[in-house]
Amino acid sequence: MTRAELIDHIAEKQSMLCVGLDTDLDRIPKHLLSEEDPIFAFNKAIIDATAEYCVAYKPNTAFYEAYGLSGWQSLEKTVAYIKANYPKHFVIADAKRGDIGNTAKRYAKAFLETMNCDSITVAPYMGADSVEPFGGIPGKWVIVLGLTSNAGAEDVQKLMLQSGEYVHTAVMDKVHSWFSDDELMFVVGATRPDELAKLREKYPTTFFLVPGVGAQGGSASDVIKGGMIPGDYGLLINASRGVIYASDGEDFALQAANSAKKLRDEMKANM
Amino acid sequence: MTRAELIDHIAEKQSMLCVGLDTDLDRIPKHLLSEEDPIFAFNKAIIDATAEYCVAYKPNTAFYEAYGLSGWQSLEKTVAYIKANYPKHFVIADAKRGDIGNTAKRYAKAFLETMNCDSITVAPYMGADSVEPFGGIPGKWVIVLGLTSNAGAEDVQKLMLQSGEYVHTAVMDKVHSWFSDDELMFVVGATRPDELAKLREKYPTTFFLVPGVGAQGGSASDVIKGGMIPGDYGLLINASRGVIYASDGEDFALQAANSAKKLRDEMKANM
Repeated sequence: MTRAELIDHIAEKQSMLCVGLDTDLDRIPKHLLSEEDPIFAFNKAIIDATAEYCVAYKPNTAFYEAYGLSGWQSLEKTVAYIKANYPKHFVIADAKRGDIGNTAKRYAKAFLETMNCDSITVAPYMGADSVEPFGGIPGKWVIVLGLTSNAGAEDVQKLMLQSGEYVHTAVMDKVHSWFSDDELMFVVGATRPDELAKLREKYPTTFFLVPGVGAQGGSASDVIKGGMIPGDYGLLINASRGVIYASDGEDFALQAANSAKKLRDEMKANM
Repeated sequence: MTRAELIDHIAEKQSMLCVGLDTDLDRIPKHLLSEEDPIFAFNKAIIDATAEYCVAYKPNTAFYEAYGLSGWQSLEKTVAYIKANYPKHFVIADAKRGDIGNTAKRYAKAFLETMNCDSITVAPYMGADSVEPFGGIPGKWVIVLGLTSNAGAEDVQKLMLQSGEYVHTAVMDKVHSWFSDDELMFVVGATRPDELAKLREKYPTTFFLVPGVGAQGGSASDVIKGGMIPGDYGLLINASRGVIYASDGEDFALQAANSAKKLRDEMKANM
């Protein structure tokens, strides 16, 4: 998907919402467990209910891998379902991969070609030769961890370098020099709105994928105030549990839609 | 697998060799492509041929994921085959995962329980809450990236902190404080023998998984000189392409065995 297509979709929907598909058999409504593929049945219902209010879906691959072969199958079916029925929606394989050369190319093939996602999240600890191989595939994006929303961000990303910079900004500068804004996004956590605003100043035209809204405590309006690029938007704001587990009853899809609509309305009011 | 069991196996074999199963349909012998599952057929032949000379196997999960569902199936069959036929061999899921809390727990479940590997490689960029969840599973190990063997290690791991330490040593110190030596290993590249010796001084009782021998240019005897713990060994030395692709003809398994034996002999002479 091109940058222009993504921006058009955001403008059309007046939404930057990305719905995180962290699907967990222990949390989905009990009545779905008798389905042949309960994970896919849940995802399909959530996707059909929320597609109107969001512009992206982000399956977290760990949740699928945890179920082995059948989980991998549910993930493939989910991505294929989105691509067939909602082709404007941007699909993020939240895989947080990071390995070198040939191996990185394999991951790019797995998620961007075989599975046909639009993008994959990548961890930068191994440096250039673990990140660059994800670039250069037309219409595909690499989403690199910058400053994450979890407490552990202090342990590595927020260490102070001799140069007076934090590790994460030094890393983001390097990563930024390897790609164009048509194929690179950064992960920047919503739980750090002041830092999000500073990173927006540093990278005024790069899309940010912002997790941490809702269950993790960040607010969509704060994120938009600190991070929106006028005209270009430049944000995908992710909510996972707060949307998909809004209810565990028969009405789960309706409640997910309501929850997604509420977030879309908050975004629309601030765009 | 316990530390004592791993050490006993190393002593028995006089080998610290780990064979990396980076299995690629473009590189395996052509005559295997007519098999029902060529990846598994190749792995099975390589495992049967090399088990005598090594103590561990390390499938790199990217190679399997690149083939989607069928690749994932080949990976599960490969791990099950090793566990059933060579139960003393230590199995490393070289997955380089790194994600927080619940997600990390999912990955731990996927590879250490569902797939029953002995260990998984983990990237530390997201900090404590992305690494600690892999601990505390009896007999299972977390193998954290310390200083890797690739050129990109300079981009993040070798940045100098205000404290006068490199990023990688600050990270390794923290990680080391979260686990016991019965469940933690570090990845330390063979292409940096002087630095391997320094890290051994810092962490005298922690196992290191050392990639970069053979195709990447490191030497097993240098690694042993710089990194072996007397009596305890403390090293798994990985070779992938140099062993498994020693020949692409009908004799591939025999040549892989010869290549593994040569490495074992070099290790034995230096142990």
